[in-house]
Amino acid sequence: MKAVVKEKAAPGARLMDVDVPAPGPRDVLIKVKAAAICGTDIHIMEWPPFAQARIKPPMIFGHECSGEVVKVGDQVKNIAVGDLVAVETHIPDETCFMCQTGLQHICEKMAIIGVHVDGVFAEYAKIPAVCCWKLARDTNPDLGAILEPWGVAVNGILKGEVNNRTVAVFGCGPIGLMGLGSIHAWGASKIFAVEPSEMRLSMVPQFAPDAVLINPAKDNAAKVILDATGGRGVDVSIDISGNPRAIQAAFEVVRRAGRVTLVGLPSEPVTLELTANVIYKEARVFGSTGRMMWQTWYEMQNLMDSGKFDPMPVITHRMPLADFAKGIELAQSGKAGKILLYP
Amino acid sequence: MKAVVKEKAAPGARLMDVDVPAPGPRDVLIKVKAAAICGTDIHIMEWPPFAQARIKPPMIFGHECSGEVVKVGDQVKNIAVGDLVAVETHIPDETCFMCQTGLQHICEKMAIIGVHVDGVFAEYAKIPAVCCWKLARDTNPDLGAILEPWGVAVNGILKGEVNNRTVAVFGCGPIGLMGLGSIHAWGASKIFAVEPSEMRLSMVPQFAPDAVLINPAKDNAAKVILDATGGRGVDVSIDISGNPRAIQAAFEVVRRAGRVTLVGLPSEPVTLELTANVIYKEARVFGSTGRMMWQTWYEMQNLMDSGKFDPMPVITHRMPLADFAKGIELAQSGKAGKILLYP
Amino acid sequence: MKAVVKEKAAPGARLMDVDVPAPGPRDVLIKVKAAAICGTDIHIMEWPPFAQARIKPPMIFGHECSGEVVKVGDQVKNIAVGDLVAVETHIPDETCFMCQTGLQHICEKMAIIGVHVDGVFAEYAKIPAVCCWKLARDTNPDLGAILEPWGVAVNGILKGEVNNRTVAVFGCGPIGLMGLGSIHAWGASKIFAVEPSEMRLSMVPQFAPDAVLINPAKDNAAKVILDATGGRGVDVSIDISGNPRAIQAAFEVVRRAGRVTLVGLPSEPVTLELTANVIYKEARVFGSTGRMMWQTWYEMQNLMDSGKFDPMPVITHRMPLADFAKGIELAQSGKAGKILLYP
Amino acid sequence: MKAVVKEKAAPGARLMDVDVPAPGPRDVLIKVKAAAICGTDIHIMEWPPFAQARIKPPMIFGHECSGEVVKVGDQVKNIAVGDLVAVETHIPDETCFMCQTGLQHICEKMAIIGVHVDGVFAEYAKIPAVCCWKLARDTNPDLGAILEPWGVAVNGILKGEVNNRTVAVFGCGPIGLMGLGSIHAWGASKIFAVEPSEMRLSMVPQFAPDAVLINPAKDNAAKVILDATGGRGVDVSIDISGNPRAIQAAFEVVRRAGRVTLVGLPSEPVTLELTANVIYKEARVFGSTGRMMWQTWYEMQNLMDSGKFDPMPVITHRMPLADFAKGIELAQSGKAGKILLYP
Repeated sequence: MKAVVKEKAAPGARLMDVDVPAPGPRDVLIKVKAAAICGTDIHIMEWPPFAQARIKPPMIFGHECSGEVVKVGDQVKNIAVGDLVAVETHIPDETCFMCQTGLQHICEKMAIIGVHVDGVFAEYAKIPAVCCWKLARDTNPDLGAILEPWGVAVNGILKGEVNNRTVAVFGCGPIGLMGLGSIHAWGASKIFAVEPSEMRLSMVPQFAPDAVLINPAKDNAAKVILDATGGRGVDVSIDISGNPRAIQAAFEVVRRAGRVTLVGLPSEPVTLELTANVIYKEARVFGSTGRMMWQTWYEMQNLMDSGKFDPMPVITHRMPLADFAKGIELAQSGKAGKILLYP
Repeated sequence: MKAVVKEKAAPGARLMDVDVPAPGPRDVLIKVKAAAICGTDIHIMEWPPFAQARIKPPMIFGHECSGEVVKVGDQVKNIAVGDLVAVETHIPDETCFMCQTGLQHICEKMAIIGVHVDGVFAEYAKIPAVCCWKLARDTNPDLGAILEPWGVAVNGILKGEVNNRTVAVFGCGPIGLMGLGSIHAWGASKIFAVEPSEMRLSMVPQFAPDAVLINPAKDNAAKVILDATGGRGVDVSIDISGNPRAIQAAFEVVRRAGRVTLVGLPSEPVTLELTANVIYKEARVFGSTGRMMWQTWYEMQNLMDSGKFDPMPVITHRMPLADFAKGIELAQSGKAGKILLYP
Repeated sequence: MKAVVKEKAAPGARLMDVDVPAPGPRDVLIKVKAAAICGTDIHIMEWPPFAQARIKPPMIFGHECSGEVVKVGDQVKNIAVGDLVAVETHIPDETCFMCQTGLQHICEKMAIIGVHVDGVFAEYAKIPAVCCWKLARDTNPDLGAILEPWGVAVNGILKGEVNNRTVAVFGCGPIGLMGLGSIHAWGASKIFAVEPSEMRLSMVPQFAPDAVLINPAKDNAAKVILDATGGRGVDVSIDISGNPRAIQAAFEVVRRAGRVTLVGLPSEPVTLELTANVIYKEARVFGSTGRMMWQTWYEMQNLMDSGKFDPMPVITHRMPLADFAKGIELAQSGKAGKILLYP
Repeated sequence: MKAVVKEKAAPGARLMDVDVPAPGPRDVLIKVKAAAICGTDIHIMEWPPFAQARIKPPMIFGHECSGEVVKVGDQVKNIAVGDLVAVETHIPDETCFMCQTGLQHICEKMAIIGVHVDGVFAEYAKIPAVCCWKLARDTNPDLGAILEPWGVAVNGILKGEVNNRTVAVFGCGPIGLMGLGSIHAWGASKIFAVEPSEMRLSMVPQFAPDAVLINPAKDNAAKVILDATGGRGVDVSIDISGNPRAIQAAFEVVRRAGRVTLVGLPSEPVTLELTANVIYKEARVFGSTGRMMWQTWYEMQNLMDSGKFDPMPVITHRMPLADFAKGIELAQSGKAGKILLYP
């Protein structure tokens, strides 16, 4: 089969012919219907220290996808050949303290598809049954491919209250955009969207029609938000950018007793004014990573079923798997929403 | 001034001339702009044991209102002559354990305006400053008069999660209708509205456009809701009726680990199947009364400011104070939303 | 092997020779080291409608036990021959909404060991690996046999706060006693223990040394508790008796904004004064059943490891499996703590 | 009367004769029975930028105290001449959003006794009635003087669960010591105490007998704690030191899904590794300041009444008010617990 392989410990990747993987007794084999490009894939391509520390070439990468089940291991319950599934990227070990207390998504011995084991930028992929989310068979496979990143936003949003709250979102890439749509649908009273890319900022109104748009390259985001809230600040501040300056602003604009959720991953330590912005305010801060298995997925399903939000407009580009390099370059540019690849 | 007085320990009431009350140092005197009729007022008029046990005639009753401040006691901070205020009915003693831990609305020594002290069906009313909620001066006074009952719904709704949840509401009188509008605005994924009065049921779509309407006089509400949720039941079940049969149904339809909130006041003990409907389900049950001071009021203000919900359509009738008896009769009939009286 | 078999749909049971069960690929076979008698076993013996509705003879019953693993299915991870395990009675289906959101203990398709499938009053038992809690190999097997009932108490206690709280416990059978010990260890400020059996009441001080002992056959429990709390009531009220009168008292004595947890299973509907005892008080009520998998078990392990509480004194009698009928009779009498059987 | 006055905008202070203050209508006048020295008093004495920015000389400082009420303003309810009170330092404005939603201790317009208005290092002090906590008249006044700092610890501890949890406390000055005693009494399963002063560390066992003592000047605290928890880390990590290195360690040692509470005030921004220590762990972080009015005080009262913990051993020195300079010097040295001054 065709697959995008990180062949060597160096920048780049190659579309190659490889063997179709053989599923184990608790795995399924899927025919990949649609895969999406994530920031992690850019890192794997570029080969910075972050990638060098995690990836052991040669391996197939890519992890966001939907697929049709074509084989099931003999210990697999509840999934059948012909099912359409979306893939949860995190493989929990199922035996650690976290896994045994309902928090598989922060498993102490987590493996990640497309990072620690072969991924989904391929015609077929072997997926542990425990990482499959069944979709109605008539679901658009493109939707299935973007549930995983949407779930990153939903997990962070739902660390606390959002209905009837003022919410500031820092970072409006694909995850931020889908997050904004969810926050809007769940009844936030006022939304601020902060993003330096004008292209991305211009997409916000499709997701949160009444959001106040702020380009931090032009305006002081913290000042704009504090002014618009009479100096009090927002109830909820969510960083999806990982940018240290944005994270600092997220803490500056949260009100007393407000909530900060951190989703974006800063690539370096961040310096925070804890006395004024956390302690005197009695702020509550929540780290958020991945998606709860399966609470977050049910939340997405509920939201879609309610008809209140459709994440599909986040997809701006679609191309064959063979054009993966072009897709990754486009993703790097910041001038795209979600980009889908079709094997 | 003119006032509606419960003169004697017997059914009925009378519009009389009485002295304008003199506010104490921590009170304000308001000129009542609009007052609304509540179920309690019906009880006071009808004089059942419930009323006999609480009311000491002669007294002015009525408690839902807005008014313009015309005098302020010399210890009053933060309220000035000319302010428009809505009235919180519950007078906390401010010194008990509940009052001192943020729960004034369930004060251990609560007094209630229009029940324990003179009320607002009058041209003027003396209101403790601690019971005044300031409105922007250009607010429609009619809106100010319905915040108190709307708050009853909001307090109950916000005992837990509602965004992205399936919610069943039992009882669609004025409180239930405003509750439905709030639940809809705060992103419930699916709403069931249960009400035996066809007139009230027909008002539901103005408040929650997509709600499933159920008349329990015609259909088995529990069965309809269970069928519509694949047998699982709803995430949240809220009784605003106080009807024992509705309360039982609220427990039947809640799903495992779901939430039941009880707002309506049953006039007799209720027999519940606790083993199947609470214990095996691990249901969570929350009593709710009055409005949090002032969390609930901020929630209403936020919701109005967000433009997502306007409770005004709950008002179906308006009449002069002198017609109070007609208004109370209309309220008794169940063939009205909220009825306003103008002194 | 020897096993206690419910042979026929009639009162009684018989010790018989049966085949040693063969574990499936995801099961283990244990050699039962110690088993404990539960109220459910009494029901199975006596054969009331509750048992008739659930049990399909012939079957082996008994479900509380510890055992040494002697065989493991080929799909079993993390459990090895020679391990000592305690048994979780509830078999979750692992695929329903509850199981997939961290609430396996209230699985929508639960099966129960010793009720729906063969149990542990036998020399050997087949146990799904997903129901095994590994113990240090030098753990006293008697302790392993009482974790399951202790967990029933712990799950109920931890539905909310307990440290620094006044707590009333209704029902001081084995589960109640172990619950009292846990509540004491977790820093309750004052404890009330209500139990009509003098024998059981006399055991309370071993578990909660400072508890106020109340025999509801002699004193009005609600009155005693209200008097001792200045009329305010307790912060937390936990019913472990299932007795309707005790449940009513649990609601009477809880304070405004307090918590009621229901653990005991009433055999009939219970009539409650909801207006005064739930709604006006804004009480919070939590149903509790079984044990969280595996949060509750970790809580027990932590408590034992801390050295703050030892549940072993709850065991008052030990006898060979062949004496099961005598043990069940003793349990029926209410004149025992926990009774262990040794195959 | 005699009072310790910060006379000039420069280091130092002076015992002077000043007028006895006159209480307003909502104040009380107390005869100070015992006052305690706080870190803030050291700052006021030393006159660093922190003090220069807040203090407007001349003024009386000191804020931790108990006193007997000798006069009451005519609007004061519930406090009488002869009452013994402890003083809450934070004066809420009672009208802001925080004050109106149960969070007076983080009032948006807070004034602080002994910082913004005259304090309690004096024979008499004027205290707003809203800042008085009534004690039983036979309470030891020394105890009344240490409730305020003890409350700082209690507020931080109770931002989340503590019973049955492993807890690391960074900073074992007077607040930390009283916090350790509370954590122990509330059923923590294992406690780690981190403190560089050997004198303070040696006091820990009086408060938390089983605590593991760690001197970060000698050992790597994070390593010791991680090793002792099998690499997992603690459930709860509380910083009471304000030391940046300790705060970093608090984040390093918290387990996945664990809680960090920040109580100590760092005097400069702190650099944190958010990706590994907050986001990937899904840590929950809570700022904590002052004491909840009055939830925290009830918690202290409950704990004292339960007999499970007595904070009095934190008092190591007692001296007349005239020796305030000696007392402050002693406090600066770190070689003392709490130091009391008697006017």
